[in-house]
This record gives sequence, C-alpha cells and structure tokens, in this order.
Amino acid sequence: MVPIDINCDMGESFGNWNMGNDEAVMPYITSANIAGGYHAGDPHVMRETVALAAEHDVGVGIHPGLPDKMGFGRRTMAASPEEVRDYVVYQLGALRAFADQHDVTFQHVKPHGAMYSMLSESSEHSRAVMEGILDVDDNLIYLATDMNIYEVTEEYDDLRAVFEGYVDLDYRSDRSLIVEQEKVAPDPELVADRFVSIATEGEVEAATGEMIDVPADSICIHGDSPNAVELLEAIHNRVEEHDIELVPLDDIA
Amino acid sequence: MVPIDINCDMGESFGNWNMGNDEAVMPYITSANIAGGYHAGDPHVMRETVALAAEHDVGVGIHPGLPDKMGFGRRTMAASPEEVRDYVVYQLGALRAFADQHDVTFQHVKPHGAMYSMLSESSEHSRAVMEGILDVDDNLIYLATDMNIYEVTEEYDDLRAVFEGYVDLDYRSDRSLIVEQEKVAPDPELVADRFVSIATEGEVEAATGEMIDVPADSICIHGDSPNAVELLEAIHNRVEEHDIELVPLDDIA
Amino acid sequence: MVPIDINCDMGESFGNWNMGNDEAVMPYITSANIAGGYHAGDPHVMRETVALAAEHDVGVGIHPGLPDKMGFGRRTMAASPEEVRDYVVYQLGALRAFADQHDVTFQHVKPHGAMYSMLSESSEHSRAVMEGILDVDDNLIYLATDMNIYEVTEEYDDLRAVFEGYVDLDYRSDRSLIVEQEKVAPDPELVADRFVSIATEGEVEAATGEMIDVPADSICIHGDSPNAVELLEAIHNRVEEHDIELVPLDDIA
Amino acid sequence: MVPIDINCDMGESFGNWNMGNDEAVMPYITSANIAGGYHAGDPHVMRETVALAAEHDVGVGIHPGLPDKMGFGRRTMAASPEEVRDYVVYQLGALRAFADQHDVTFQHVKPHGAMYSMLSESSEHSRAVMEGILDVDDNLIYLATDMNIYEVTEEYDDLRAVFEGYVDLDYRSDRSLIVEQEKVAPDPELVADRFVSIATEGEVEAATGEMIDVPADSICIHGDSPNAVELLEAIHNRVEEHDIELVPLDDIA
Repeated sequence: MVPIDINCDMGESFGNWNMGNDEAVMPYITSANIAGGYHAGDPHVMRETVALAAEHDVGVGIHPGLPDKMGFGRRTMAASPEEVRDYVVYQLGALRAFADQHDVTFQHVKPHGAMYSMLSESSEHSRAVMEGILDVDDNLIYLATDMNIYEVTEEYDDLRAVFEGYVDLDYRSDRSLIVEQEKVAPDPELVADRFVSIATEGEVEAATGEMIDVPADSICIHGDSPNAVELLEAIHNRVEEHDIELVPLDDIA
Repeated sequence: MVPIDINCDMGESFGNWNMGNDEAVMPYITSANIAGGYHAGDPHVMRETVALAAEHDVGVGIHPGLPDKMGFGRRTMAASPEEVRDYVVYQLGALRAFADQHDVTFQHVKPHGAMYSMLSESSEHSRAVMEGILDVDDNLIYLATDMNIYEVTEEYDDLRAVFEGYVDLDYRSDRSLIVEQEKVAPDPELVADRFVSIATEGEVEAATGEMIDVPADSICIHGDSPNAVELLEAIHNRVEEHDIELVPLDDIA
Repeated sequence: MVPIDINCDMGESFGNWNMGNDEAVMPYITSANIAGGYHAGDPHVMRETVALAAEHDVGVGIHPGLPDKMGFGRRTMAASPEEVRDYVVYQLGALRAFADQHDVTFQHVKPHGAMYSMLSESSEHSRAVMEGILDVDDNLIYLATDMNIYEVTEEYDDLRAVFEGYVDLDYRSDRSLIVEQEKVAPDPELVADRFVSIATEGEVEAATGEMIDVPADSICIHGDSPNAVELLEAIHNRVEEHDIELVPLDDIA
Repeated sequence: MVPIDINCDMGESFGNWNMGNDEAVMPYITSANIAGGYHAGDPHVMRETVALAAEHDVGVGIHPGLPDKMGFGRRTMAASPEEVRDYVVYQLGALRAFADQHDVTFQHVKPHGAMYSMLSESSEHSRAVMEGILDVDDNLIYLATDMNIYEVTEEYDDLRAVFEGYVDLDYRSDRSLIVEQEKVAPDPELVADRFVSIATEGEVEAATGEMIDVPADSICIHGDSPNAVELLEAIHNRVEEHDIELVPLDDIA
C-alpha cells in the first residue's frame, strides 16, 4: 500500500462571515490546515473546526497567516524573519490548545498566502520559522508547498517535512502552478488520474504535455473549487484499485 | 519555611507602545501573568516577556483578556460562557507555545480586567473557563482573584487553584478591595508588614482596623504602582527573618 | 402622493468575506444604511457600496456599530456615552468621505445591533450620540428604530428624525417585534399589505390581530430575508395604485 | 513678513497606551498631523487631539497610515493604489468629522511611515491618493514630504500642495535625510538657525557643509525628539527678529 495524505485549508470563516464548505469536505481529507485567527478564523471557528476534524479522524495543523484580515493574508509585508516566526508560534500555540482540548493530534504547520510567498522568496524567513517550530515542538511536520522551502527544511536534520503536490491546478514544465483568475471546475477524472500518478509514480503530466517529477507525500485540494467534493469523491473511488492508502501526515513523515 | 508566590501582570506593551516596567519588576517576582494579545500584548511582546521570565526563573501564566484592545479589556461585554472559554483557550495556547520555545514552565491562568469581573459575577462563565483549562492541560493552576471564583474552582477535584491576596491596596472588612482613582505610592514598610501577615498568619488588617482572613498562597503586586520596585524590595528584605520562601505558583499548588 | 422611504442594511461584507445581496436589493430601496468598518464593512466595501447606491439614486447613511467584528456588533459592552458617541462620529465621518467622493447625499445615521440596544435602554447614551451628530452636521437625519429612541430625538428641536416600521417581521400588540430564531420567508402579499397599511394609515395588524399605530416614514427591509427581493418587488407593485411615492429619507424628514 | 508653518505628528496614543507629548508641543505648532486609527490613534484620542488643537488655533490634518497597528504603520505592504486611496479617504473622513464637531479647520493630508514610502516610490499610488483627496474635497492641502511626491502634486492644477523641510535632522547634499538609530537631542540654536535659513532663504546647510535648496513652506518637528519643546521655544524666540510669521498651512497654500 502506498500511503498518501490529502490536505485542505479549513476554518477560514470569521465571526458571522462564512467561507468554504468545511462540513462537506472534511469527511474526504486526512489533514486539515486550520487558520489561526490572523488572516482568517477566530477562536470559535477554530474550536468548531478542530471538533469537526476530530469527528472524522483528520489530523490538524496550523495554517498561519500574516496579521492582515482585511487583505486575507494575501499581501506581502515588510515583516522581519523574527516577526514572522513570532506570528507562526502564536497561531500554532493557539490552535494546538484547541487540539489538546479535543484530543486531536496536532501534527503540522503550513503557512498561508503571502506568508508562504515570503518564506519561498527568503530562506532567512524560512529558517526563522522552522527554528521557531523546532523550539516549540520538534515532533511537528512542516508541510512544504514548493521546492525552495522544502530544500530549507532539509537543512534541519530533526525537522520532519513533507512536500505537497497539486491535482486541481495545472503544472507548468518547471513545476510552477498555473493559477486561473476565475475558479473553474476541473474534470474529476483528470484530477483522479493525476492523484494516482503522483501517489504511485511521483510524477504528473504538465499542461504542456511532458511528465514532471512531483515527489509529494501529500496532495492539496482547494476546498473552494466549485466541485471540490466531486473531485474528492473521484479520488476516493480510485485509491483502492491502485493500492493507495489515505493517511494523515503524521503517519507519513 | 512558609512558601508564598509573588505574581504581577506583565507584557502589557503593544507594538510601539510601552506599558509597565517589566525589566525592573521581573527580578523580584516568582510568577508572571502575561497578556495574550487580546486586551494587550502581541506575539513579539509575549516572546520577549517569556524570555525575560526565563532569565529570572519566573513561572509564567496567561493573563487572558476580552477582545477589546481599545478598552484595554476593561469593559464587560455580553459574551457567552463558551465564547469566553474560547478566548481563554486561544490566548493560553499562544502563550504556552512561547513558553515551550523558551523552556519555561507554563503554570497558570489568571483572567484580566472585565473578563475577571464577568467570571466573578457568573459561575456559569467561570465553569466554562475552568473546564476549558482542564481539557487543555489538567496540570495548569487557576489563580483566583476573589472568593466567588475560588469557590467555583473547588467544584473541580482535579483543578489546581491558588487564592491570591493584595498588599498594595487596602481591604475593606468584607475582603473587598478599595481601588483608588489616582494611583498612590503605598508605604513600603506597611506593604511588607501586610505581606508577612498574610504569608505567615493568613490574615491582614483592613482599612477599618479589624483583622480579616486572607488565605492566600500568592500575593499580587501592581507593577504600575508608582513605587512598585521599592515595595518589592521591602518585601524581599523581610522574607528571610520570617522564614518565608518565595517560590513560583507551580511549587505551591 | 404619500411619500415613504425603504431602508436596508448594506455593505456588511468584510475583506474576502461576502454577506448579503447588495446588488440585487439596491435597485428596490431608497436609503442604504452602510456599515462603517467596526462591526462590518471596510474601506473597500464602503466605497463599492456607496458607488452602488449612487448608481441607483439611493440616499446613504451610516450604520455604525460597536468595535466588535468577531461578534458582529451584537454584544452589548460597557462603553460610556462619550465612547459610543466617538464611535458614531468616527464611522459617520469615514462614510461621509466616500459619499463626497461619489457625489452622493449623505443623509442619515442608524445605529446597528447592540449599539442600537444600548441607546434604546439608556437615554444618556442616546443623547450623547444625537449631540455628536448635531455637532458634526445638523442637517443629518436620525433614523429611529423604536419609540424610546424616537422620543429622545424629540428633545432636540434642530435634529431631523424619522421613525421606522417593519413589515417582514410580526409586531406584538405593544409594538415590539417578534424576531424568529430561524429566518423564514414571509409571504410577499402580506408584507405588501402591511407596507401599504403603514404608509397610508400609519397602522398595521399585530400578530394577535389588533391594529396598532406605527407612525413610520421609513420601512426597514431585512436584506438577509430568504426572499428579500421578492418582498421588495411585491411592495413596488403596490405603491402606484395606492398613491405611495418611494423617496429617500432626505426628501421626507 | 515671511509666512511659514510648523507641523508635527500628533494623536499617536492608542487606548490605554500613551505616546508623545501632545499637550506640551501643541502650543508651539501651527498644523497638527493627527493619526486616523489605523497605525495609531482611536476615536477617543482623535477627539481629544482635535479639541487640543482647537484650543491652540492649530490647523488639523489627517496623518493616515496602513492598517498595521502592531507594526505602527512602518512596514510596507503589497496594497494596490486603490486600496491605499481607500485607507486615506476612510481616515480623512473620520478625522474631518471630529474637526467639524469642534469647529476646527480641516486643512491637510500627510501620509505616515510606510504609506509615505510607498507613495514616494510609486507615482501610481501617489496619484490614486491625490485623486481621492480631490474627489472628497478639493480645498484640502497635500503636505509633501519629499520631491518625488511634490512633483506628482504638480500634475494636478487644482490640488493645493506644500513641501515640508526638516530642521531637527541633518540633510545630505542630495536633500535626503540622515535618520539616526538612536534619538539624539539636537542643538536648539542650530535648529533655530536652520529654521530661519529655510524660512527666509529657502536653503539650509547640509551635513557635508554645502548649502542645499529646501523650498519649504512648512517645517516638520519630531514631537518625539528628547528636547522637542526646547527646540520649538528656540524657534519661536527667533521668528520675530527675522520677520517670520508662524501660520497654519491653510494660510499658506
């Protein structure tokens, strides 16, 4: 059996404002990246999302963002490595307390939006964050969204790290992702094919036709795809025949 | 030796705005109540305050507040027991991560300002918060500011709790505190006398002259008293001759 | 022709979070109560909502809330009359600048949620807010949600004030409103009947059957009713035959 | 008589946190740049600061900042021209309402910190902000901190603009300013000499000894200089003998 994780951003509602479709998506995933109250989420949303994850045996991790709720954490800002590290530690701790409250495994860290971009572009920022994570709990997993960041994780012998792939977006031949302005509904069968290909072969077909390496142990699904649940069902329908086992990150890293 | 703790609110600066005199006060106390970013504090201030506590072997705890920075957490609000519990869990977790980062014992919870008042007036709110604390970590200590709250802690067999007393304010005969509008500088010798009296006898002289019971294992010092450091020095000068030992909460409860 | 205004809360989205159905509702109303960035809204949402109002010749007013985005301004808080007045002046001014930018008439003030409740229960708070409004611009209109508040407006000779009625909720015989836990879709014809009755007779049938006085010159429609647009269409279909003219508040007060 | 304005940043306290020395400085200045609640300030602080300006016949303007209180508006962020314009309009309007409440002339706009830097580096951002100001009120004055920005103001025939100079910092020969890490107390007589030189000759001696053009009609004094009041007194002592008249911006532009 080939083990692989499916991760999805969760808990991005805030106060009276709903976002996403967490109740429908949670049954199909194995790891939830939960917002920490900075770019999205709040203590009530965090508690409810952790409780929902507990119900479906989903591993939880923090999806920390920049302190910019108005911009949904999507605007880079001139914050120092130490400042970003502090934001990660703060949000990580807050979510971990809810995980403890609900007896859920707190397993991973995956930075959101502009914070992710800042880490990808600055290894100094990446290192600050990774060292902060190790100082808090050296059993945590860093879920790396691109190779820039994954390579920094490899500098730390004691840092567990997992590289993630994408199946509901097209890759370019250089393994960058093509992000459409308008959300389109991807073809479920194509998405499931890609999932199997990455899980079993570690490669996937790029938009231009060639096969590219995607050495991922976790697949990120965008919960805000118009047909996210349908995509997840198509993936679930394939796993058995291909001897793929869906497991949380903590069982992989 | 009679063990007793000295606790003080710390980490109430925010961004570029300074408050309090943490560096001068920290060497004299044994437990620090650190703001969690809601009524005061932010991730940078929290990290720095935890590091300062670590340097002086001071036990740390969360001083959670209501989400009202503009009002410094001093305005009660119609938040439900569950909402208040969520605010405590969130801030508790955030601070605990900084404590882990700096290898400091995370020991206690002491609600701030209007949150404290709400708990004092509503045992339903108190219970929600205490059950939240127990769910997260049943080794934590609840530092109780008045008897209303302390009595609720006694409903929970597995909840560690400590009652705190005051020596830089006057008590009324009903054990309520006289809070002056203007901060005055109390007499250091009087404050030290009260400290010894509570530590060794569990009682103190009220403003009206009679002795009242104050069964406290921790004394709260207001760091914003005009002469807080002088008061703390006077207390430290007395402890040896009275066989009093200053220890963090975690060594008492 | 009997002039009457239709007002509706607008601009309650925030950042990436959408709320309400402003584009569908705006064509049917004459006055928009726009959130000011405290309980909901932000500068981008405010600008867009004012621009949408301008397009449909809708008069705009501020719908100021308490500084509690997490609670959507629905939790009363122990803020002083002067503090509440300051929150109103701040949000009023912010929205008025967007109205100036788009050459829209800035006409009125209608407090939101818990701020409204606080004014209704404390004439001291009401007076502080009304005096603040008069000091900023004595041409502004106070849109009064209940008689407690309307009676305070009458203490000020120079304060324009309008009393509002409701047609998508049931009145009790004491003119209080029955607010359902679950949003139900009211019957459009019943709602239109009530609208005509209040507009032409100043009275409406209560849930218990008797007619009660509702001396309103503006009717509030809840934009988050499941069938708000249908209700508004039913009202619009009736106005001509009853010689009712729909006009913004500024043409009435 | 040569008219010149003295401007100073004011109202940077927040909630319970004090900053600056507004009461001591206000009597000596002619224009106050007041924070708008984003990087600093809040509605209560804004009202009090406007009232203090009113007492001393000081003209008021908005000192708008980025929505980053934790970073005091000093961290650039990837906000679009339109987003920055919206932040300026929002804060401008909020402060203008307090000015109306206190019958004070609302005269100018001077962006703060990282917002200023973003405008200086991007004429697209500058134009968006200037057009926003003109749309709200074409009588307002843009107080320009450097030539990049001043040159953009000159593209708008109907925009009043004033260039400001500095006397408590040293200029380099290219008219950039030398900002020390540590605040030092400048020599009051040197500062007064510079003030007279800029006011009467439009030039000042750079750190390297040569005279450089500083065609300023307003001088910015840093209220957080260790000896700001002493500097202001030295300036005031000189103005009479040099036929310099201190007047608010509105009397100059």
